[in-house]
Amino acid sequence: MANIDQRDTICALATPPGLAGLAVIRVSGIGAVPACSAHVKSHVPLDAANDHTIHYGWWYHGETRIDAITATVFRAPHSYTGEDVVEIGCHGGTFVVEQIIASLLSGPVRMADPGEFTRRAFLNGKLDLPQAEAVADLIHAQTLAGSQTAARQLAGGFTRRLSELRETLLSASGLLEVELDFSEEGYEFISREAFLQTLSDGIAFAKRLADSARSAEVLRSGFYCAVVGYPNAGKSSLFNALLDRPRAIVSHIPGTTRDYLEESMIIDGYTIHLYDTAGLRNTEDTIELQGILLTSSLLEQSNLILIVNDASHGYDASDSLADDLRTRYADAPVVIIQNKMDLVEGILEPDRTGNIPCSTVSKDGIDGVRTLLVDQARSSSAGATDVLINSRHAALLKNLVHHLTAAEQAITHQEPADLVAIDIRSAVRILGEITGDTWNPDVLDTIFSRFCIGK
Amino acid sequence: MANIDQRDTICALATPPGLAGLAVIRVSGIGAVPACSAHVKSHVPLDAANDHTIHYGWWYHGETRIDAITATVFRAPHSYTGEDVVEIGCHGGTFVVEQIIASLLSGPVRMADPGEFTRRAFLNGKLDLPQAEAVADLIHAQTLAGSQTAARQLAGGFTRRLSELRETLLSASGLLEVELDFSEEGYEFISREAFLQTLSDGIAFAKRLADSARSAEVLRSGFYCAVVGYPNAGKSSLFNALLDRPRAIVSHIPGTTRDYLEESMIIDGYTIHLYDTAGLRNTEDTIELQGILLTSSLLEQSNLILIVNDASHGYDASDSLADDLRTRYADAPVVIIQNKMDLVEGILEPDRTGNIPCSTVSKDGIDGVRTLLVDQARSSSAGATDVLINSRHAALLKNLVHHLTAAEQAITHQEPADLVAIDIRSAVRILGEITGDTWNPDVLDTIFSRFCIGK
Repeated sequence: MANIDQRDTICALATPPGLAGLAVIRVSGIGAVPACSAHVKSHVPLDAANDHTIHYGWWYHGETRIDAITATVFRAPHSYTGEDVVEIGCHGGTFVVEQIIASLLSGPVRMADPGEFTRRAFLNGKLDLPQAEAVADLIHAQTLAGSQTAARQLAGGFTRRLSELRETLLSASGLLEVELDFSEEGYEFISREAFLQTLSDGIAFAKRLADSARSAEVLRSGFYCAVVGYPNAGKSSLFNALLDRPRAIVSHIPGTTRDYLEESMIIDGYTIHLYDTAGLRNTEDTIELQGILLTSSLLEQSNLILIVNDASHGYDASDSLADDLRTRYADAPVVIIQNKMDLVEGILEPDRTGNIPCSTVSKDGIDGVRTLLVDQARSSSAGATDVLINSRHAALLKNLVHHLTAAEQAITHQEPADLVAIDIRSAVRILGEITGDTWNPDVLDTIFSRFCIGK
Repeated sequence: MANIDQRDTICALATPPGLAGLAVIRVSGIGAVPACSAHVKSHVPLDAANDHTIHYGWWYHGETRIDAITATVFRAPHSYTGEDVVEIGCHGGTFVVEQIIASLLSGPVRMADPGEFTRRAFLNGKLDLPQAEAVADLIHAQTLAGSQTAARQLAGGFTRRLSELRETLLSASGLLEVELDFSEEGYEFISREAFLQTLSDGIAFAKRLADSARSAEVLRSGFYCAVVGYPNAGKSSLFNALLDRPRAIVSHIPGTTRDYLEESMIIDGYTIHLYDTAGLRNTEDTIELQGILLTSSLLEQSNLILIVNDASHGYDASDSLADDLRTRYADAPVVIIQNKMDLVEGILEPDRTGNIPCSTVSKDGIDGVRTLLVDQARSSSAGATDVLINSRHAALLKNLVHHLTAAEQAITHQEPADLVAIDIRSAVRILGEITGDTWNPDVLDTIFSRFCIGK
């Protein structure tokens, strides 16, 4: 175990707030069993309970009977946190949960900080850092594939490969140090050829991972699609038509700045966030200027920009808008939806193969738009690997590539071993930061502040 | 066990939906252990797991790793439902829960109906009917006292007392039948004096319980307070001032009919539902007529009616409205809040002792209104006993009182034993319906449809 941090005993509701059959309150720390035992009347007293057993009983606060509960006892180190843990299963009512937590807090137990259970699991060596990050990603994944990738990451394969690379570099670094001691004799303790191969493999591996960051972000947060267009082109109607059939509407969030409206839906395991850009809607005259300025941050973070064009005004009515958006936002594909096809005679011109015809009135073509959304979501996340690279990983990986490349060049140019060794040591340190072999409290604070309380 | 209903294996999410560290999926029925075992890789296979033990493992759907989970195994009859139960603890992410449930449903498991776990617990003799009803009340209780009363009811003391009364009446009924067989001889197998005492005690007991229904409703659902008054008296300002300090705002529900606005807050363990009656606000001219008609159903179910009076228009400006409301709604106290006291010189007239002076501008007196709300909530729920009498109980208890009184009178008037026996038998049957010793599927459907899925 890397470290033990068992001074305080902590508790928190581990399940979502709300009314349900069951709620679970998690208690962890050296005082977890006695703190719960003081409030629980059960056949086997919790103090005497075996590891990994569950007990039926009543929770009392003083003389007041609070609820019929179950208490699951995990003994250190065989628990999520690596500490003694008790999980109290109670009825999922507001006042029941509140009273049980109040009973605990009346003793030597404090409320857990966000992510503190997982932070302790990390500090006690139960999880490495990418595994801890996978826990947050598993909970918050907005796509089915993201959830499954996070599960693979939680299983730990990613860190193993990084650790292997780290071990190889660490041993190379050691041999380079020895070479330095015998530099007069001109010995080579490490084959330059084999070492170049290791470096080149490491660079390719790190580049591939770093490049998957954008795909991973789609898997993690879902696919962002901005819907723009001139007034009355049918943006809201397209919105409603798209939202009509999907299985689940995740949220309906009026933009905090009132500049846009967000609706989310899940199609084929992908959460698609649709943004209705009201900015383009309100300022007809100066639309390319002011409207786009207003929504530019929105468009910048979009994975796809849909332009809704009123086909009855001509197929090319939004072409200049499309050109403008393609110039400004090179990262996201821009697709024109030819709406109001029910008002247009004839078919779409053959040179408009990328356009999608539809009618929000007759509902013709809506499935085509839906297919476009899923296809784009799938292809934009296709680069993801067995790990959900996040911005922390990506920054470290880029730095890793920099140092490995520098070492590679130093060897190729037959520079002295001490110059090579500097970059190798940096690479080893960076790999340790990714896996959490080396860490500092600030990094942990950043990582675990993203967690919910109770995890 | 009263009955066994283990044909289907059922599953459901037992914790609230939403993102959190932990979610629990409950599986119950004869196929629960094999259904889960097929998807779980753990050190000890679930099939071989001991009763009341918890196991760490991975959930798989086919070859796809879904999540790191815990599985708690309960063997029949030592479980909540009395059947084999497995509780799967997984990460509380949308896609994780969905995939685990989908894996289960791909085998011989179906989704549970609302309340089906508790229904099975009842049918398998693990809970009587008032205990099952207490489970729903524990989850949904809108007051601290209601939660604690439901916990006492879940402990089963209530049913014990009803069963004792039932036993006494059943044995009396038996003795009366014997008397009938020997009626020619004129024997008295049961002392009329002692029996009259039993009946009189039973009547008092049943009446006290039936009378507590309104108090129990406050404990269960919270305290309903309608805020009425003429336009610009400061209703909304009072609303906001009241909502300012409380610990928790439970909900903000615009009235579905747009006739009123509801805000809820918890003060001293009581959920107070405040209704702003927009009806009185909008129709100034015909206010007593149309406005009150619109909100009459709202006022009828209120536990308290607050009239906000603009004191700067005179302390008596709302007196006729108060008189009118007191006549129409005799059940709820009507209290006048003298608002805008900051605009009035001098103190409140001594004959207005029931009025509460306040200023939503200076905030003076707001605490007084808050105290009024809690005091009224407390006194309106003071009649509650160790059980949360609901409308089903209340109807049966009134019927019980009717039959016990009839039996009492028959004995007092020295009517024949067979006449007495008829009412005693009815009383015994009613007591059995309350406790669930006798039941019919329709009653169970009604009771368990109030439950959430997963309980």
